[in-house]
Amino acid sequence: MASHANVQKFKIALCQLMVTSDKERNINHARVRIEDAAAKGAKLVVLPEIWNCPLSLENLSKYAENIDAEEAPSISMLSEVAAQQNITIIGGSIPEKTNGRLFNTCCVLGPDGKIKAKHRKLHLFDVDIIGDITFRESDILMAGGEPTVVDTDVGRIGIGICHDIRFPELAMLYRLRDVGLICYPGAFNLSTGQLLWEMMQRSRAADNQLFVATCSPAREPNTMSDYIIWGHSTLVGPFGDIIATTGHQMATVLGEIDYSIIQTRRENLPLEIQRRADIYELVDVQEKLAG
Amino acid sequence: MASHANVQKFKIALCQLMVTSDKERNINHARVRIEDAAAKGAKLVVLPEIWNCPLSLENLSKYAENIDAEEAPSISMLSEVAAQQNITIIGGSIPEKTNGRLFNTCCVLGPDGKIKAKHRKLHLFDVDIIGDITFRESDILMAGGEPTVVDTDVGRIGIGICHDIRFPELAMLYRLRDVGLICYPGAFNLSTGQLLWEMMQRSRAADNQLFVATCSPAREPNTMSDYIIWGHSTLVGPFGDIIATTGHQMATVLGEIDYSIIQTRRENLPLEIQRRADIYELVDVQEKLAG
Repeated sequence: MASHANVQKFKIALCQLMVTSDKERNINHARVRIEDAAAKGAKLVVLPEIWNCPLSLENLSKYAENIDAEEAPSISMLSEVAAQQNITIIGGSIPEKTNGRLFNTCCVLGPDGKIKAKHRKLHLFDVDIIGDITFRESDILMAGGEPTVVDTDVGRIGIGICHDIRFPELAMLYRLRDVGLICYPGAFNLSTGQLLWEMMQRSRAADNQLFVATCSPAREPNTMSDYIIWGHSTLVGPFGDIIATTGHQMATVLGEIDYSIIQTRRENLPLEIQRRADIYELVDVQEKLAG
Repeated sequence: MASHANVQKFKIALCQLMVTSDKERNINHARVRIEDAAAKGAKLVVLPEIWNCPLSLENLSKYAENIDAEEAPSISMLSEVAAQQNITIIGGSIPEKTNGRLFNTCCVLGPDGKIKAKHRKLHLFDVDIIGDITFRESDILMAGGEPTVVDTDVGRIGIGICHDIRFPELAMLYRLRDVGLICYPGAFNLSTGQLLWEMMQRSRAADNQLFVATCSPAREPNTMSDYIIWGHSTLVGPFGDIIATTGHQMATVLGEIDYSIIQTRRENLPLEIQRRADIYELVDVQEKLAG
């Protein structure tokens, strides 16, 4: 079984939040949207990348929280609402500060309100296209040290943040570790969004025959930033089929995940068996080192 | 340099041929289309998967040729026209018989008319979706033993045939071997074509920041076969951008390949540097064994 879930079938909600510069408002707004999603039956709620402040390199340290020291109002709220609503939350990401270092971090919370996993963005987005976009996360952020697979009440889930989706190896590694769903909180911009966002999620899903969910912030209509958010939070099925999606405005995307479809797809077209281990092999380096 | 080409910029033609049950007609027709493409300035011409007979498992042994024994009218024609027109040809594929075994084989011909490489389809297409499609190539065909990278007058090219495109590892391996272009002759059907064909080529190109060219047979309008050809031969650039494409009818898709774009893209967004060798590694198994 590729899911390791207590339930085979459940509702997932992707909260495409409108983010402002008012952190308290962002936290309260996220809580309302999560409660609303739970009221609509969602057992798993996914938030966007960087949802407690507008996405800009300057904001990251200003809005950062120390998660381990429990000085983290954004994460405390997620913890409370997960327990109150009895749901699992993939907490998008917030800037995390610890020992003077800054990470882009996703917390996964269980229905008991506890942090079950913490994923720090592995691949920082450094791009430089003259006349289009220049953005260097690595000037500000540290990259995480390991991939994240978490067993939840709604199955075994792999986590990536935004640019992590550009690396097919990570999704393949998650397939090797038997996840049924990969969640990518992300905030693609206009220039990469239109060209790559949908294609990336669909190909990660189809290549690995599993579910992929992405969650972006909504586009701020009056933004003065050069970084225009693409939006289009989406749930994709194991054949690369779009199950539910939206545009760039504030929205909650609701969809159903049925892990039995993974098994059906893999029986129909057994890619795993058809792979050529005599020609190529994807090595899970840390798993191999661990022994 | 990712291309190893004598020329950095050239025209490529994808001949989406209409295939009939008349082999002699198919060979003559292919010749005319190749000559026409060369007259339009193409220095590289790509043919479809299985272009000397209609694609069905029953036809494969009937239309097969023994390429090594030079009893191969389809390949002899390609050899002649490559030399006559001073072009490189990725000869789509034909059924190849040798020592009682049957392969789905792509020959690459240089402007001297010689066979520069022979790629035997590595991943056979076995699919079984009740009420939709059942197709088991492995009942009839043997799979090839190794990937194919060939240095031509128009750069270093990797070859895959149809279902080979479904495996991201092969494209990644070709990137490791420094190809600038992957050519996939293919004949996706209606059910996988609409969902996967374009996405697969775009994501192989974008993930590896190189060119991808696909070439399908045209759809036979009066076919009695269950296997309806998708068509849509396409040239994709290193950002996953569609440079040239077509529908399902007979057509020659003409496009320009400019290898300098690969370098620009890789400088803009250095995915290769951003990969996490401490987390995953794609191993080129045969290269590693060879030492």
